[in-house]
Amino acid sequence: MYTIKKLQSIISEEISKEISQLNETEPKNLYEPISYALSMGGKRLRPVMVLLAGNLFSDSIENALPAALAIEVFHNFTLLHDDIMDGAELRRNSLSVYKKYNQNIAILSGDAMSIMAYNYLLRCDSSDHTGMIRLFSQTALEVCEGQQLDMDFESTLDVSIPQYMNMIRLKTAVLLACSLKLGAMAVGASEKSSDLLYAFGLNLGIAFQIQDDLLDVFANPDKFGKKVGGDIVSNKKTFLLLKALELSDPGLKITIQDWMTKSEFDETEKIQAITEIYKKLNIRMITEGYVNEYYKSALNLLEEIELPGEAKNELLQLAAMIMTRDH
Amino acid sequence: MYTIKKLQSIISEEISKEISQLNETEPKNLYEPISYALSMGGKRLRPVMVLLAGNLFSDSIENALPAALAIEVFHNFTLLHDDIMDGAELRRNSLSVYKKYNQNIAILSGDAMSIMAYNYLLRCDSSDHTGMIRLFSQTALEVCEGQQLDMDFESTLDVSIPQYMNMIRLKTAVLLACSLKLGAMAVGASEKSSDLLYAFGLNLGIAFQIQDDLLDVFANPDKFGKKVGGDIVSNKKTFLLLKALELSDPGLKITIQDWMTKSEFDETEKIQAITEIYKKLNIRMITEGYVNEYYKSALNLLEEIELPGEAKNELLQLAAMIMTRDH
Repeated sequence: MYTIKKLQSIISEEISKEISQLNETEPKNLYEPISYALSMGGKRLRPVMVLLAGNLFSDSIENALPAALAIEVFHNFTLLHDDIMDGAELRRNSLSVYKKYNQNIAILSGDAMSIMAYNYLLRCDSSDHTGMIRLFSQTALEVCEGQQLDMDFESTLDVSIPQYMNMIRLKTAVLLACSLKLGAMAVGASEKSSDLLYAFGLNLGIAFQIQDDLLDVFANPDKFGKKVGGDIVSNKKTFLLLKALELSDPGLKITIQDWMTKSEFDETEKIQAITEIYKKLNIRMITEGYVNEYYKSALNLLEEIELPGEAKNELLQLAAMIMTRDH
Repeated sequence: MYTIKKLQSIISEEISKEISQLNETEPKNLYEPISYALSMGGKRLRPVMVLLAGNLFSDSIENALPAALAIEVFHNFTLLHDDIMDGAELRRNSLSVYKKYNQNIAILSGDAMSIMAYNYLLRCDSSDHTGMIRLFSQTALEVCEGQQLDMDFESTLDVSIPQYMNMIRLKTAVLLACSLKLGAMAVGASEKSSDLLYAFGLNLGIAFQIQDDLLDVFANPDKFGKKVGGDIVSNKKTFLLLKALELSDPGLKITIQDWMTKSEFDETEKIQAITEIYKKLNIRMITEGYVNEYYKSALNLLEEIELPGEAKNELLQLAAMIMTRDH
């Protein structure tokens, strides 16, 4: 089997080739922003998941490569349009596409990327080609639903934990799950194995997203790439906040709501106050309990897949990498 | 064969069913704008083309229906995002989606529609399912390219007639061509017939778009739904303008450019002045010559398709309807 590092280098090379081609494609104002978006990098987590899943069942991962590209291009499309919607001027320390070019170019280049993702997927030569496209397309729509729910949550405090879980399932987890299943399907793995991988990815994705919320507050500031407490400042409806609202008595609830409705405040003071409430309500341990529960479910599903131990080890490494990624 | 009117009523009913379903689908803020966009109506020209093409080769058009929905949803997605990019507040006398809701909702609902188009297409049960998706996806990307070229043209006077022809081919004609070919493919027509229909649609689409430019200036104001001369006021790079720039001597060219760079002017005066130049350069006849050339090419291609006369008559009626549509 290939190591994760090797798979990362394979997909990076593949993306570089695509970027070179895009730089030669007209109209420039459509394809250059796409090339720019793809060249911003990142760990290429999702395409590596596609390739790794393929490699679990086949020595040759040739056929999973177009699916890996499809997933990476689609993921970057969502980032591109999300940045317009969030007004985010930076992405991975570079200007976001809409800021570097303009909004119209960003909308249209994003549209083209979403279509290109299908075009990559159409290059696969799989026995269940239509099944792969169907899974991808269903997932893509779910990601849109998740993004809309996330936007809906911005304007309400009335979000239950089950509603939040549904949102992160759609916004984050289904694409990780789809990545693994597509890789397996591309090399002709059995339906049972593909489905188990999907379920593994779904649980892993949910664990990852809740942990992401946790790290915003309780990360080691020296290792954490962004400002600790950013979600608190921006009133993001994280697992921690929603759980705190659920568990707090009426008085404490009002204190939290007061902080959230203040338009002028000292950021450090707000972060400190909310973090104190989290500590009082034992939110860190409760959240870690959820993370562990979903992570364990993922590992249990992995047990069920009929694979040699070496293959499973690679998947475990990937899972660990996802859970401990630098932010 | 079904009449065009009957096909219009079939697709309208189909779209109404989809709209009802969308109104029941969560998240509301994602699917209600889609339902709104689809309910704005129009003549459903493209889906009728899909069904008519299917009906040419098969009495049962059941299998072309999902492709017809795919094309209509995709077309409305392009309108939705175009309205954001153009800042167009009205669409068919109703508020455009971004104006009725907001920009973020319009971006995301459009994204979802583009994905939904594939999902509809995936419902077809055709022997060349992948071929249909491939054609659709290729076409969808071309439409994005055409839209980008059209936006590029806004900021330059240096657009040649061949560049313009390429832009309208991509922005308008390929989707008409694709509609016809998808319908034929959905019912298993021969490759030769499908390809001829595509070429027919391409030529028809180009004729239609040039005629659209012509009608902006030379339409009967009583029958024309919008203000005659709108393209002149907004400096749109129409076939007429580009041809006039090509044919005018240096002095006349400067006159045209002067009108185009004026930021304050009397609209009626500008329309009159440019129309005078068009008349002087015989632009109307030249443009009609191009329209007729492409229209005749379309009809010649139709001759080559092996079909009974009755079937061809329906296609001819459709072609005539496209060329004489009310604006």
